[in-house]
Amino acid sequence: MGTTQLESVPEPKYWHLRTVLSEALDSEFSVGEILPNERDLAARFGVARATLRQALEQLELEGRLQRRRGVGTTVAPPRVGVAVGTEQHAWPGAAGDVWQTADCDLAVPAASVADALESGRDEPVHTVHRSRVTHGQPVAAELLYIPQSSVPDLSGIDAPSGAARARAVLRELHRLELEGQDSAVELGSARADDAKALDRLPGAPVLVVTTRYIAAGRTAALSVATYRADTCRLTFGDSGGVEIHEDPQRRAS
Amino acid sequence: MGTTQLESVPEPKYWHLRTVLSEALDSEFSVGEILPNERDLAARFGVARATLRQALEQLELEGRLQRRRGVGTTVAPPRVGVAVGTEQHAWPGAAGDVWQTADCDLAVPAASVADALESGRDEPVHTVHRSRVTHGQPVAAELLYIPQSSVPDLSGIDAPSGAARARAVLRELHRLELEGQDSAVELGSARADDAKALDRLPGAPVLVVTTRYIAAGRTAALSVATYRADTCRLTFGDSGGVEIHEDPQRRAS
Repeated sequence: MGTTQLESVPEPKYWHLRTVLSEALDSEFSVGEILPNERDLAARFGVARATLRQALEQLELEGRLQRRRGVGTTVAPPRVGVAVGTEQHAWPGAAGDVWQTADCDLAVPAASVADALESGRDEPVHTVHRSRVTHGQPVAAELLYIPQSSVPDLSGIDAPSGAARARAVLRELHRLELEGQDSAVELGSARADDAKALDRLPGAPVLVVTTRYIAAGRTAALSVATYRADTCRLTFGDSGGVEIHEDPQRRAS
Repeated sequence: MGTTQLESVPEPKYWHLRTVLSEALDSEFSVGEILPNERDLAARFGVARATLRQALEQLELEGRLQRRRGVGTTVAPPRVGVAVGTEQHAWPGAAGDVWQTADCDLAVPAASVADALESGRDEPVHTVHRSRVTHGQPVAAELLYIPQSSVPDLSGIDAPSGAARARAVLRELHRLELEGQDSAVELGSARADDAKALDRLPGAPVLVVTTRYIAAGRTAALSVATYRADTCRLTFGDSGGVEIHEDPQRRAS
């Protein structure tokens, strides 16, 4: 890594430093390697630590670096493609579903969730907690909201909570005919519980996929799935289609 | 907005502050309103400015706040749903395409783009620049890479560059039979040229949608589209399907 002084560059310093660092990552570092500490890096490039941190944050956003508590900043492996599969319409928990069911409770959801479900704002809904693991790493956490009106014949006797209860709720849900579903992806920041499930700090950038499942002309279930933005790219499209193995942005800038 | 001292709270201070601020945004501020300056806010909540900035950054990631040069920090309107439409397979520039064609050049792309196109690493490809505007705001910028082998009959005589050239390239591309396409969404940071097109600062978080168009068993075109992550949610799914008007994460945390 060179010792270029960045004083004379007209573009924002951190942005130029990001580019210099990005090139150094390509040429001098390998995946998993730990970067020198911030003080050494800042000294080497002749920048303030605040500038260095801005550049490191950029590279973290782009998936080039990972910052891990107790380890430091390491060179990130390429992001893993995680199929979101909006094309095949299927109920959560149907055959072939990749999510693991962890828990279930009955609680009044956030007002916005109640509105999306068109349930009353003080009406408790079944909330199924699920997680998704790829290559041994947790990649996503999901809250699946199912109003009681979608599963009217559910009995409370056998399993009042837990994974068995979650499976019973999903089984009841599958009695409805799925008419359609739509999804949206947006940027969010990890809430405390999601952060824990995903092995991240609260506030870490995440990709939030919201899916609405339609039956009998209304929203029968609502899924809010939080994916790690640092390690995941969400893939859509033809089943068995080609996979873009490398991030085209990676060396394009 | 209260003056709660945050000293005694066990969770990270900025995270607690984010929650307090988020509630204040709901109850005391309206969309477009300018927040008090950082010094005043920090004093009011009894936190260091670095802590305040972290909290503001979180709320910006979540789409609650917008920071604009020369204006300050304002309360953001709800994100706009932008249909990405991976379900309907169509060539870029086909009837009904929402993108506006701006320019075209012939250049050697980044190595990763060349690899995805399976073109040679020093082979120039047609690069069509397009933009997407929703409700009068720029929401996305696209680079569409088309190898010369996909448009072999293109003549260079009439329009060597510019929008006319771009249209000629797309017209030639449409001669191929589109066999399929797949897409991926991931988090990125705006490059300088994208940032300018999107009215953002370089490094702003963006959602990068990469789409591969397949013809004759190979990648005939590759689109790298950069969406503003602050103002957009990308929607997928049934045409004419329901729309989730409010961010279910917004008040869920």
